[in-house]
Amino acid sequence: MITIKEVAQHAGVSVRTVSRVLNNNPHVAEATRNQVLSVIQELDFRPSAAARYMRTGQSQLIGFLTDELAQNAFGYDLIIGAQQAAWEHGKLLFLLNTNNDPEVEARAINMMRDYQVEGIVYATIYHRQIKHSQFPKDLPTLLVNCFADDRSLPSIVPDEIAGGRLATETLLKKGHRRVGFVSIAAKEPAPLGRLEGYRQALASFDIPYDEALVRFIEEPFEGLANSTYDSVLSLLQMPNPPTGIFCFNDLMVLGAYDAIRKTSLRIPEDVAVVGFDNVEILAAQVHPPLTTVELPNFEMGQLAVRMLLGLEETNRGGRPVQHMIHCPLIERKSV
Amino acid sequence: MITIKEVAQHAGVSVRTVSRVLNNNPHVAEATRNQVLSVIQELDFRPSAAARYMRTGQSQLIGFLTDELAQNAFGYDLIIGAQQAAWEHGKLLFLLNTNNDPEVEARAINMMRDYQVEGIVYATIYHRQIKHSQFPKDLPTLLVNCFADDRSLPSIVPDEIAGGRLATETLLKKGHRRVGFVSIAAKEPAPLGRLEGYRQALASFDIPYDEALVRFIEEPFEGLANSTYDSVLSLLQMPNPPTGIFCFNDLMVLGAYDAIRKTSLRIPEDVAVVGFDNVEILAAQVHPPLTTVELPNFEMGQLAVRMLLGLEETNRGGRPVQHMIHCPLIERKSV
Repeated sequence: MITIKEVAQHAGVSVRTVSRVLNNNPHVAEATRNQVLSVIQELDFRPSAAARYMRTGQSQLIGFLTDELAQNAFGYDLIIGAQQAAWEHGKLLFLLNTNNDPEVEARAINMMRDYQVEGIVYATIYHRQIKHSQFPKDLPTLLVNCFADDRSLPSIVPDEIAGGRLATETLLKKGHRRVGFVSIAAKEPAPLGRLEGYRQALASFDIPYDEALVRFIEEPFEGLANSTYDSVLSLLQMPNPPTGIFCFNDLMVLGAYDAIRKTSLRIPEDVAVVGFDNVEILAAQVHPPLTTVELPNFEMGQLAVRMLLGLEETNRGGRPVQHMIHCPLIERKSV
Repeated sequence: MITIKEVAQHAGVSVRTVSRVLNNNPHVAEATRNQVLSVIQELDFRPSAAARYMRTGQSQLIGFLTDELAQNAFGYDLIIGAQQAAWEHGKLLFLLNTNNDPEVEARAINMMRDYQVEGIVYATIYHRQIKHSQFPKDLPTLLVNCFADDRSLPSIVPDEIAGGRLATETLLKKGHRRVGFVSIAAKEPAPLGRLEGYRQALASFDIPYDEALVRFIEEPFEGLANSTYDSVLSLLQMPNPPTGIFCFNDLMVLGAYDAIRKTSLRIPEDVAVVGFDNVEILAAQVHPPLTTVELPNFEMGQLAVRMLLGLEETNRGGRPVQHMIHCPLIERKSV
């Protein structure tokens, strides 16, 4: 490997001068600068990241921590969005998955600090509140799909209420007046917010909330599609069954479709269905393809990095921005 | 931030002595070592990664390059497996997705070299051959789900033939004698290998290969589940239809199930189905849950890092190991 010293020797200048050229310091004569640059090219000198860090104090690294990466809605597109935004600005992502283990999390943050990351993006698998105290005060931190208990850190979360309202209104606008909602029994922002959106949409159409049309699946959630099958079947067997069904997520739609077919009803002619997430492998592949509200993971990942790099507002009125991202409707064939 | 110089001053020793203590150099008197360690603790001194690299020449970083990350079978578990193995050995992963763009790939490799990664894991989204020339000779490189044209780099790929044989034998052992195979029309190791395995399994049961039972879906593969629906329907409408169907991947099973239900046949009583991949979001959630051959992505990611770190054999008889990983059967309810 070529060192900065060898460059200096070949160029007949001091190491300090080479360093100044590398850092675009203006106090170098034009002729000297050109001489150094041509030697750098000739020797194919490449300053190491460590050496550059030593000079500039900028590591060009962004730490990307996740509590859990799973094959469902969350994770994938978020990482790709973050990585793309980082790459566009000459930064690299450090990916670390902590499996939600507080000890691993603490070690991971220490390691990231040790590597002098310029900041940390912390993304959770489901929308939830986290403790601000697990993050160091001296490192810029951006939360995605979660928010700090005391709102002391900037965050990006999906607008669950607007998303639930959009899903429900999509059915109401098609003329459906009996709309079922199958969700999960968890006191978390996603199920609570989407239920609130469902209620708001009904209210805006002057339709009273009927709890007989709402089903909450209890934990464990492993066999979620199967539990949804049972819930939707029971909804369809009511004396006055729903003609539209809003499923809390796309995975549940697998069970909903099976139940609708079981009762020999057609989708969307007899029963219309709307999902949530827009997991392509499900939504675009089921038959008929699913109309669903998208969790804009790619955009969240991208925005997180842009905020961390100071390209977007992170403070408003002296407070860390709590950004609620819009979840758009993806229209396919199930409504 | 505390510097090594301050530690030296507080301990009343030279910077070189502190450095020796940090590097576990044995040529330091016990009393001096204890003195330095107690000052390090007292001042909460933490050598930066850059400083450590300068001392040891080890960056503790592993570059993880992917051509494409998608929500289907590949990617996810592989990254988690690699990351877990790296973490266990105190290393961090640098994740970069190149979108299969040669220019981005070249820049990414340069950046990784610039960061002095200890080696590179390069993983492709589908099993294929790649050019060895895109990788630098001076950096340990491990290929996953792909192999170099001249076999000059160690690689880990799934054993497609054995996997295809296993899927087919699972149906044959249950007594099925008419077994259909729905695959994709691509001259790549996965479809070619699984077809070869299908033929070998038939041969081992003395069943002649019948091309009427095999369907190849043409590109584009976007609506793969829908195309599979058509293929399986045409198989089931044959005068002597198959009673067992092997699908090239789990995603196609969505269409296969729909076609079987369309003809009012039961799974597995009338028609048994085996998939390939074991994508949990599909295989465990469809009804009935799918018996499938697993692409062991987690294990591949883990093994890649272990090989890169020299914990597993990477050369055999002077040649880079071309590891074929076993794809196990995951039994559920569709056979």
